Amino acid sequence: MKIVLHNYWRSSASHRVRIALHHKQLAFEYVVINILKRDQFADAYREKNPMQQVPTLQITEEDGAVHTLRQSLPIMEFLDERFPAIPLMPKDPYKRAAARALAETINSGIQPLQNLTVTNQIKTLGADVTVWTKGFIETGLGAFAAAAAETAGKFCVGDEVSIADCCLVPQLASARRFGADVARHEQLLRIEERCLALPGFKNAAPDQQPDAVK
Amino acid sequence: MKIVLHNYWRSSASHRVRIALHHKQLAFEYVVINILKRDQFADAYREKNPMQQVPTLQITEEDGAVHTLRQSLPIMEFLDERFPAIPLMPKDPYKRAAARALAETINSGIQPLQNLTVTNQIKTLGADVTVWTKGFIETGLGAFAAAAAETAGKFCVGDEVSIADCCLVPQLASARRFGADVARHEQLLRIEERCLALPGFKNAAPDQQPDAVK
Repeated sequence: MKIVLHNYWRSSASHRVRIALHHKQLAFEYVVINILKRDQFADAYREKNPMQQVPTLQITEEDGAVHTLRQSLPIMEFLDERFPAIPLMPKDPYKRAAARALAETINSGIQPLQNLTVTNQIKTLGADVTVWTKGFIETGLGAFAAAAAETAGKFCVGDEVSIADCCLVPQLASARRFGADVARHEQLLRIEERCLALPGFKNAAPDQQPDAVK
Repeated sequence: MKIVLHNYWRSSASHRVRIALHHKQLAFEYVVINILKRDQFADAYREKNPMQQVPTLQITEEDGAVHTLRQSLPIMEFLDERFPAIPLMPKDPYKRAAARALAETINSGIQPLQNLTVTNQIKTLGADVTVWTKGFIETGLGAFAAAAAETAGKFCVGDEVSIADCCLVPQLASARRFGADVARHEQLLRIEERCLALPGFKNAAPDQQPDAVK
């Protein structure tokens, strides 16, 4: 079995999946899709990912069948089902729902409004991209922090790493990049610090990737 | 056990969860959160849903414990785990990943860009909301159709209803409301027709809800 990740170092959705792969100690091949150079719009990539977004995960099974997986959260759900030894989902059904809801608060509540396609359109409208992105990020992070306050232990949901943490760490990095206020979220920053001390999160960090521009 | 759905008739995320509940033949109490009247910003609702969005599902267990679930896809995942008799997830892991990816193409790929908060901001920027929404809906539906072409049978993934169909039907309704071109997606329209013939989808339809404005 072989795992190939098509991704970009600074894409937060790519970063989430890298965290999941490294945290689960899964070996994978790293393929660069440079979204600044519009690699995602190439015909060969569109066949893999009709949304023309990163990441895409391809799995070649031992029988030779190649499976193409899209969308960061569904990819993480698949990895968690297939490789459960180091889990990313709480065992309790309500805690699992809470972890998924936190992940979605970022995945559908924040990230779609800060991604490159959208911010390019905002620029075209003559609006201030920083004001646009900061607003959505700060509202979303505020909601995330309020919900996480109900469930957090050492990590976002209890004392174990979950998909919520896999989404939080890349979102905090994006928040800083866009100049959003993160200092007020002390609990989230403590969780981030604990995450970044773990090898999986360290190995998945944007600046550790082969295509990182420093 | 008691299920309460806080929602709004025309919200597509609310519509998804209503489809899941009705398709699974689960009785629930319907609470109206009128997002045009800004009910979602009331303090009492923010405590239930820090993102101040619909839907929110509350479950009172037989021991009296009240659990608050947020975000439409995590709510549907919970319902599918807890009430598996009428499933919304394919059994095959790769088909399950495909169903989740289709659902996310709408949930994070389209809906966040057409929702009221965002379109209000687009209006404030002096831009044409119809152009904005149509563009994202048509791109997203095109990607959805291309991915669904790989997996569809009678429904989006094979011959059984899944979370992908629960997302597709509300999105097609939104697409028409925003004037997007849906006619080109013949396969999706055939799937929609099959869905709308089912009692669960009929009962969940926006115009069948108590707060519908006709």
